[in-house]
Amino acid sequence: MKCEHLQKTGSFKARGALNAIQKMKDEGTVKGVVTHSSGNHGQGLAWAASESNLPCCVAVPRNAPPSKIEAMKSYGARLELCEPTHKSREETCARLAKDLGYRVVEPFDDPNVICGQGTIGAEIIEQVPTADAVFLAVGGGGLASGVTAYITEIRPDIKVFLVEPVGKDLAAYLKNGKLTTERDVLDTIADGIRVLKVGENCYPILKGACSDRIITVTDKEIRAALKLIWARTKQRVEPSAAVPLAGLLKVSPAELGIKNAVLILCGGNVDLDFIP
Amino acid sequence: MKCEHLQKTGSFKARGALNAIQKMKDEGTVKGVVTHSSGNHGQGLAWAASESNLPCCVAVPRNAPPSKIEAMKSYGARLELCEPTHKSREETCARLAKDLGYRVVEPFDDPNVICGQGTIGAEIIEQVPTADAVFLAVGGGGLASGVTAYITEIRPDIKVFLVEPVGKDLAAYLKNGKLTTERDVLDTIADGIRVLKVGENCYPILKGACSDRIITVTDKEIRAALKLIWARTKQRVEPSAAVPLAGLLKVSPAELGIKNAVLILCGGNVDLDFIP
Repeated sequence: MKCEHLQKTGSFKARGALNAIQKMKDEGTVKGVVTHSSGNHGQGLAWAASESNLPCCVAVPRNAPPSKIEAMKSYGARLELCEPTHKSREETCARLAKDLGYRVVEPFDDPNVICGQGTIGAEIIEQVPTADAVFLAVGGGGLASGVTAYITEIRPDIKVFLVEPVGKDLAAYLKNGKLTTERDVLDTIADGIRVLKVGENCYPILKGACSDRIITVTDKEIRAALKLIWARTKQRVEPSAAVPLAGLLKVSPAELGIKNAVLILCGGNVDLDFIP
Repeated sequence: MKCEHLQKTGSFKARGALNAIQKMKDEGTVKGVVTHSSGNHGQGLAWAASESNLPCCVAVPRNAPPSKIEAMKSYGARLELCEPTHKSREETCARLAKDLGYRVVEPFDDPNVICGQGTIGAEIIEQVPTADAVFLAVGGGGLASGVTAYITEIRPDIKVFLVEPVGKDLAAYLKNGKLTTERDVLDTIADGIRVLKVGENCYPILKGACSDRIITVTDKEIRAALKLIWARTKQRVEPSAAVPLAGLLKVSPAELGIKNAVLILCGGNVDLDFIP
């Protein structure tokens, strides 16, 4: 288990956010940064901005978990509530960027964010040289494409499996390049991966490497995996972080030739009164 | 933080139980082991017995947390429910020992159990050579006296602080050798340390070394410390494991000359629907 819930800000998002801000500063003057997020990317960006002495503003959907809203504030971000749709999130973010003169750091489709998340792949290869498979949860695709790009380049023998919540239909999307639904967010317990569409920059990476390695799991299966992690490892991860285990439990590792699987536990930002 | 919630069976109790069984086997034939426990010692003993190919039976108070009851069963123990008083626990345990011909492994007052728990002290000294204080929660006193005995012998410069729930009145007990109440268990959220009286073998160790280093905390303070651990470290410890932090937050480390405190997180066996 790659424990990103123990990462700064409680999720892997700190990696991409810090890399994006550093690259921006390398390129010229930055007045501030803005994004849209239901929590984890917002926390990562708020923390990275504060480390870089920059102001940060986040467009937050109204249904974001209270603990994530509080955490974003505690890292110094200014929040602007919006509707829980991808459209409202992007519009609010764009308006804030224009009004404030801040630079947008896209939650998953920014190449520098993707590269930052990819450092997880580099660390897995270093820390678990005997790994032959990586299971990860896919939402917008920043983590998935960053890790996949790195691993398929450096260690193409390691198979990357994308685990998705029911309704995402990622296989069809990667095949046709079109969504099968009009919605842009999913109703799943895994609040970190509710975004339906993977980013444009993520798309070709995932299509090329993972089209035949997609596992679909139900909320019931995610809950069962979450209970198992909480009860047995004592790690208080968030629902999205249990998605890879739900995927692993759904396949037959032996049939797939998997001996040493790495699960990416993407984050641990979950309300104190949440019951799995 | 010394993370005993990551220990086998989810608490430090595996240490003392394994040591006690090993010593018994060194001394002669053992048919089986029996104890009384609200959960953690029972799990530790059941696991240690199964590792040693011995049957195990546990007298369990009716108010023990369901997850701990299930876990004891899953480690192969036979359970016998009893009343939630120290008297009923000891009587049930003694009856089982007689009926089955099993050896009793006392939860905290057995010298071999105390020595087993003391290995935590040895590891702290090895892992954190710069430690100048250890905070631990005191229940029956097995962990407290094992760690205290080892540390005061090897590194007397390290101060051991005993943190107790309100109502235990440990300072008075250590001073007078008498309890100030007729009850034998405490009503506290910290279910692992509800036993009121410290063991007879633990008493002289704690009296000698810790009489002036006792900190008393309320359930409210334990809850606040537990929330802090869950939210910030993502470690899903049980209420008893938050008691040392509650104690640390109650004193002024600077005034006490403490720079590097070690908190013993004693366990992580908590029901999945528990909210702090």
